[in-house]
Amino acid sequence: MNTKDIKIPAGFLFGGIASGIKQGVKQNAALDLSLITSQKSCVAAGVYTQNVVRAACIDWNRNATPSESIRAVITNSGNANACTGDEGVKNCERTAELAAERLGCQANQIVVLSTGVIGEQLPMNCVETGIANCELESDSDHFLRSADAILTTDNGRKLATAALTIDGYDGSIAGMAKGAGMIGPNMATMLGIIITDFKMSSSTAQNLLTAAVNKSFNRISVEGHTSTNDAVILLSSGVGPEVSETSSAGGQFAEALNAISLELAKQIPADGEGATKLIEIQVSGAENEQQADQVARTIAASALVKTAITGCDPNWGRIVSAAGYSSAKIDLAQLTLTLNGHTVFKNGQPVSFDEHVVSKSIADKHLTLIELKIGGGQGISTHWTSNLTSEYIRINSEYRT
Amino acid sequence: MNTKDIKIPAGFLFGGIASGIKQGVKQNAALDLSLITSQKSCVAAGVYTQNVVRAACIDWNRNATPSESIRAVITNSGNANACTGDEGVKNCERTAELAAERLGCQANQIVVLSTGVIGEQLPMNCVETGIANCELESDSDHFLRSADAILTTDNGRKLATAALTIDGYDGSIAGMAKGAGMIGPNMATMLGIIITDFKMSSSTAQNLLTAAVNKSFNRISVEGHTSTNDAVILLSSGVGPEVSETSSAGGQFAEALNAISLELAKQIPADGEGATKLIEIQVSGAENEQQADQVARTIAASALVKTAITGCDPNWGRIVSAAGYSSAKIDLAQLTLTLNGHTVFKNGQPVSFDEHVVSKSIADKHLTLIELKIGGGQGISTHWTSNLTSEYIRINSEYRT
Repeated sequence: MNTKDIKIPAGFLFGGIASGIKQGVKQNAALDLSLITSQKSCVAAGVYTQNVVRAACIDWNRNATPSESIRAVITNSGNANACTGDEGVKNCERTAELAAERLGCQANQIVVLSTGVIGEQLPMNCVETGIANCELESDSDHFLRSADAILTTDNGRKLATAALTIDGYDGSIAGMAKGAGMIGPNMATMLGIIITDFKMSSSTAQNLLTAAVNKSFNRISVEGHTSTNDAVILLSSGVGPEVSETSSAGGQFAEALNAISLELAKQIPADGEGATKLIEIQVSGAENEQQADQVARTIAASALVKTAITGCDPNWGRIVSAAGYSSAKIDLAQLTLTLNGHTVFKNGQPVSFDEHVVSKSIADKHLTLIELKIGGGQGISTHWTSNLTSEYIRINSEYRT
Repeated sequence: MNTKDIKIPAGFLFGGIASGIKQGVKQNAALDLSLITSQKSCVAAGVYTQNVVRAACIDWNRNATPSESIRAVITNSGNANACTGDEGVKNCERTAELAAERLGCQANQIVVLSTGVIGEQLPMNCVETGIANCELESDSDHFLRSADAILTTDNGRKLATAALTIDGYDGSIAGMAKGAGMIGPNMATMLGIIITDFKMSSSTAQNLLTAAVNKSFNRISVEGHTSTNDAVILLSSGVGPEVSETSSAGGQFAEALNAISLELAKQIPADGEGATKLIEIQVSGAENEQQADQVARTIAASALVKTAITGCDPNWGRIVSAAGYSSAKIDLAQLTLTLNGHTVFKNGQPVSFDEHVVSKSIADKHLTLIELKIGGGQGISTHWTSNLTSEYIRINSEYRT
């Protein structure tokens, strides 16, 4: 994305600072504290990890959202503040208090996100000086600083924006995400923050966000490990006209929000740790969407499928066998698999195909498309995952120590 | 195991031959056809893969066992004869017919196992000449040849035996297994053949085998991909005295069978593709065994846990977070984790520990012991898995093409 094209929603200030948290965990002295503030109270909705072992901030945010009086999202990267016990809970509260002091509001008006190493206490001196010194502006440079400050092992920032005219008002939606490892699909392990200047009620914000997340962030994976800190937040400053779930403007907004969520979500496995390829798994013919989802999810989680793609190997047996153990109902007589448009298995029978041609199509493209028909039903689902490489192993056996 | 110590059960003949199947798939011209025959009709029981996408031989064997009139188990390695459609079904039947012709029995008295590449047709000329030329003897050399002929990417043969005296008869149980990749725990992806000379009914054989498999082969994994060809077979030649499920001799036999199953099963993740370490996951304090099993299984499947062990990194956050997304009920206030005997997380709070000492204990030992208490219940379960290394990626991105 050309960062010049980003239309920043009105009503927000942004900042990112290198507070020293990442330095403490032996990473670079990079940006590690992100502040996104609303000039007035704003509407906020959130969707959070289903992991019962979760960071202190997840409980904090579940209490705080949905809300119509949020003033900021503060994110620290480099330290997840998860599995940190009572002290971790206090540090989360203290982070909210420090941000509230800076902004002149109450602590419960602050959404707190953390991502990074599990099990170490947050260095609160870094958080304190970082919040105090973080420069807040409404321009795109500061928006980008806030987006960069939420990253950890990501290779680059993850953004998606849309300009939208509703009732004559030129508004926008802008989103940022982080995530490259510990990505499992329930909900997918990552952070996402999406902001807009269109006005909406908190229940509308929550419903639209939940729907968008279910078709995007919940359908990606890297290695399938659901993290302790997953969160996607939607903020609405309310500067522009109101959108509701039932109006045509609301439909227009929901469509743009869904597209942005999907665009952000797909950037995560595309930047999966060590990944060189994005894998898109389209399952059709299932009895219902849930069954299609189960098959796509299982294929996406298979290390054997992911290493086959690394080897540019059209080893379709690994794909159909993964579908076979997914617990979904499969009609073997209709089971049909297409790899990058080449049919390799049809109605339960192997099909002769040119392995060299299919292998080359995997090698030549960044995206590998797996299309699997599992029966005669109407259920469909698409998931995205990354391939599995030696570099993933290197990153995850060396990370932290 | 010192192969001189193997006490071969009476009543069986063994053989292994290089028929050319492996050569065809560009592997070594190694042993690839194994025959284990009973001199008279014998009792046979089997436990098979739960994958709905399964090899032709799985359906064949489900019809054939349990039985009191089996004459042989024929196994080919190098070709799984899975996802091979109608031709694959015919080739499985033909394999049984060829073995039956050689032994002078009916095709339905033959158990057929296949393991190797999915989706390619069996080279039946190799199978035919292999069966015709395979030398069958009762000695340990030929037993070892039959055990070696079932291997694929394994680094070495997998054996377990026990001598057993019941009612004054000196009999034995001897088992062989194969498996290093596509190992998922339902049932675990591999082949196992266990033979004994003690007599039993086919229902006793089936019940004892199912119980043994549930506590052994179903509790191991390498990457969690349930294969199309999983099978464990128990053969009883009936030369020795009879054991029943209710007699004390039966208890003695069951105990030995369970021990052999476990010994064989643990050799599989210990030889997991690219693996350098065996990981044992003991979960306790669960509401019931099923909940403990779910937690152990989820931790065993986590690529992040497995790469942390590769890095000798006591990164316990990955372990407790995996428990957290297992769907099992977890009491956070009692959640306690011990790594190689060192407590690193206690009652939901992080514990200060010497990272260097714990890291060194992982580095120094082949076995990493993870003990996790998830509550105050009585449910326990132990799983075994391998660590995940770059070598796994190399093997599985290069295998086949």
